[in-house]
Amino acid sequence: MTAIAASEEAFVLCQTDGGIVTLTLNRPKQYNALSQAMLAALQAELDRVAADKTVRVVVIAGSGPAFCAGHDLKEMRAHTDQAFHHALFAQCGRVMLTINRMPQPVVARVHGIATAAGCQLVAACDLAVASDNARFATSGINVGLFCATPGVALSRNLGRKQALDLLLTGDFIDAPTALQQGLINCVAPLDQLDAAVRKLADSICAKSPLAIAMGKELFYRQLEMGLEAAYACASETMACNMNSEDAREGIDAFIAKRKPEWRGC
Amino acid sequence: MTAIAASEEAFVLCQTDGGIVTLTLNRPKQYNALSQAMLAALQAELDRVAADKTVRVVVIAGSGPAFCAGHDLKEMRAHTDQAFHHALFAQCGRVMLTINRMPQPVVARVHGIATAAGCQLVAACDLAVASDNARFATSGINVGLFCATPGVALSRNLGRKQALDLLLTGDFIDAPTALQQGLINCVAPLDQLDAAVRKLADSICAKSPLAIAMGKELFYRQLEMGLEAAYACASETMACNMNSEDAREGIDAFIAKRKPEWRGC
Amino acid sequence: MTAIAASEEAFVLCQTDGGIVTLTLNRPKQYNALSQAMLAALQAELDRVAADKTVRVVVIAGSGPAFCAGHDLKEMRAHTDQAFHHALFAQCGRVMLTINRMPQPVVARVHGIATAAGCQLVAACDLAVASDNARFATSGINVGLFCATPGVALSRNLGRKQALDLLLTGDFIDAPTALQQGLINCVAPLDQLDAAVRKLADSICAKSPLAIAMGKELFYRQLEMGLEAAYACASETMACNMNSEDAREGIDAFIAKRKPEWRGC
Repeated sequence: MTAIAASEEAFVLCQTDGGIVTLTLNRPKQYNALSQAMLAALQAELDRVAADKTVRVVVIAGSGPAFCAGHDLKEMRAHTDQAFHHALFAQCGRVMLTINRMPQPVVARVHGIATAAGCQLVAACDLAVASDNARFATSGINVGLFCATPGVALSRNLGRKQALDLLLTGDFIDAPTALQQGLINCVAPLDQLDAAVRKLADSICAKSPLAIAMGKELFYRQLEMGLEAAYACASETMACNMNSEDAREGIDAFIAKRKPEWRGC
Repeated sequence: MTAIAASEEAFVLCQTDGGIVTLTLNRPKQYNALSQAMLAALQAELDRVAADKTVRVVVIAGSGPAFCAGHDLKEMRAHTDQAFHHALFAQCGRVMLTINRMPQPVVARVHGIATAAGCQLVAACDLAVASDNARFATSGINVGLFCATPGVALSRNLGRKQALDLLLTGDFIDAPTALQQGLINCVAPLDQLDAAVRKLADSICAKSPLAIAMGKELFYRQLEMGLEAAYACASETMACNMNSEDAREGIDAFIAKRKPEWRGC
Repeated sequence: MTAIAASEEAFVLCQTDGGIVTLTLNRPKQYNALSQAMLAALQAELDRVAADKTVRVVVIAGSGPAFCAGHDLKEMRAHTDQAFHHALFAQCGRVMLTINRMPQPVVARVHGIATAAGCQLVAACDLAVASDNARFATSGINVGLFCATPGVALSRNLGRKQALDLLLTGDFIDAPTALQQGLINCVAPLDQLDAAVRKLADSICAKSPLAIAMGKELFYRQLEMGLEAAYACASETMACNMNSEDAREGIDAFIAKRKPEWRGC
């Protein structure tokens, strides 16, 4: 696979470096707006990558001055039928659920602004690293359109008062506030953002793919359960994981103080 | 409507300023205790305001030295039948659910202490602004009465260990701690508290009433769902919102760089 | 009961001081690994203590350099059948659920490292106090074994991105970070750790045992409900609590400005 798998004109650029795939939203002049075409391109890349066992981590980034400014308002306004809009939001929801369900961890690499569905994308990723100039808002309310679907992801990252504040006011929060409120995992100076993303991605690449995939799946599944059911499912997952080649190899390597060699998924 | 709609003796004062209604708990000598009569007065005001399409934001405040010190212990102790107490706590729960379900955002304006059901009231509001002298506690446990219903609201704002700490010890936390833990949205010096509340209320008043109402309703509904169902409901709400006059006007105004004019609910 | 109820060789030491029982994991050379024998000993102590009405607070501590380093990897690796591992994780889950369901609050006293199931133990306790040298990790992923059951407890304390970061990277967080993220209630210098635990335990000992037990039970039950059902259950609990001898005594004492005398469970 070549380093750049798509032309400059593609909606989503795909760059592969070892087990790390970076998907870059590539409509910089439109602040990488999530138009139908952009969502379709992102969905296609995510589906392809999800099935590729050589991919260990996915990074979602944006080209140009911003991460992503949400839906394409002009496209949305050009259509007057509710069916179009319902299909658009459902398409957007599918992208978010795909991130949630794919076996590899997905890391948002955020610089500049992440607004509306762009903020949702950050919230929907498993992990997020932001530059210190990043700012976040659910600004739909400024144009008479409450960010309902971003609210789904946001309210599963932030406290409800903090999420409602963003949703009702449309105000921006800066990166340190987003960190404190739980929307992102760390903040780095802009010129060290790629290094910070890389460090996180490398850490995950060093782990057993099987354990990561089983764990991510279980993590989100058990979150929707009561405590007792969650423990029951987690015990089953962990016993199953323990009886894999990778766990045996990992523990043997740990005891022998050597580096483990994973067998893969 | 006059600026002050009720006499000084009313349990709840109602002040209207544009779309902002301020409901002030008005038993300052009793630290605005949530007696049966106070709860009934607050319920009546909330019901009236919820149905009033000219009201855009509700602020709940307290007169005198404190926001609210919770239930009226003397009234509670004067009754010995469990039916009375059950009715009282159910009445209190109805007030909290009304706040949750009314179309307008409700902002707590907190100064001095907010304890027991007074702390619950803060937690049950959609947003909360506190003065830097505000302090919060669920102090029922000090008198042998675990703050069970406050715990419902509190545990939906704070992490569970932080909520349990308050509930089991009865200890106070100060405003910065309440902010860090998620109970409130911001802290202001006491002499700037009204300005901070006003800024938040004005921001909401500038938005489409329809979008705010649809969004608030959806926000709390989707919180009780699994991720996939939440996205499905939010997509429907957002498509419906998008096909309103207000969203079309909002986007047109945004593109034309002019101020939108909302049509109302 | 003697101050030290078990010999130095016991897996779990039990020390009683007034209403406070301290259970100390006692395999310091193994970093208090949660082997089958350790879990069985801890389960037995918790079951005994849960039924003892003279016990008001339980503290879980570790002897030696660490709080607890999780499961015993050598024991786990020595068995190759999945049934053994499933039984082990189920046994571990039972310990965590017992902590959750016993009438007395359980406080983790954390020093040194708390990793994997040791970190789970901290998360599963009702409250946690840590020394400033404490560090937390879910390090199973380093040996190819995703910390699935620790993730159940962790994701009910931390935001999901913060929990996933720990689970996917195996990285340590220090005590201030754990405090900020919601895993623990407070941090103390190592030489003041016991005093900090004692202060918290004393505060709970001064409360009505009945109110604490009713409250703790209700707290976790209502967390798994929707808002309306949660309020209904909490109202019932609170009315019932209000009609106890302890609540009447507590309110009378409060009004009379004297110290209450509780009747117990």
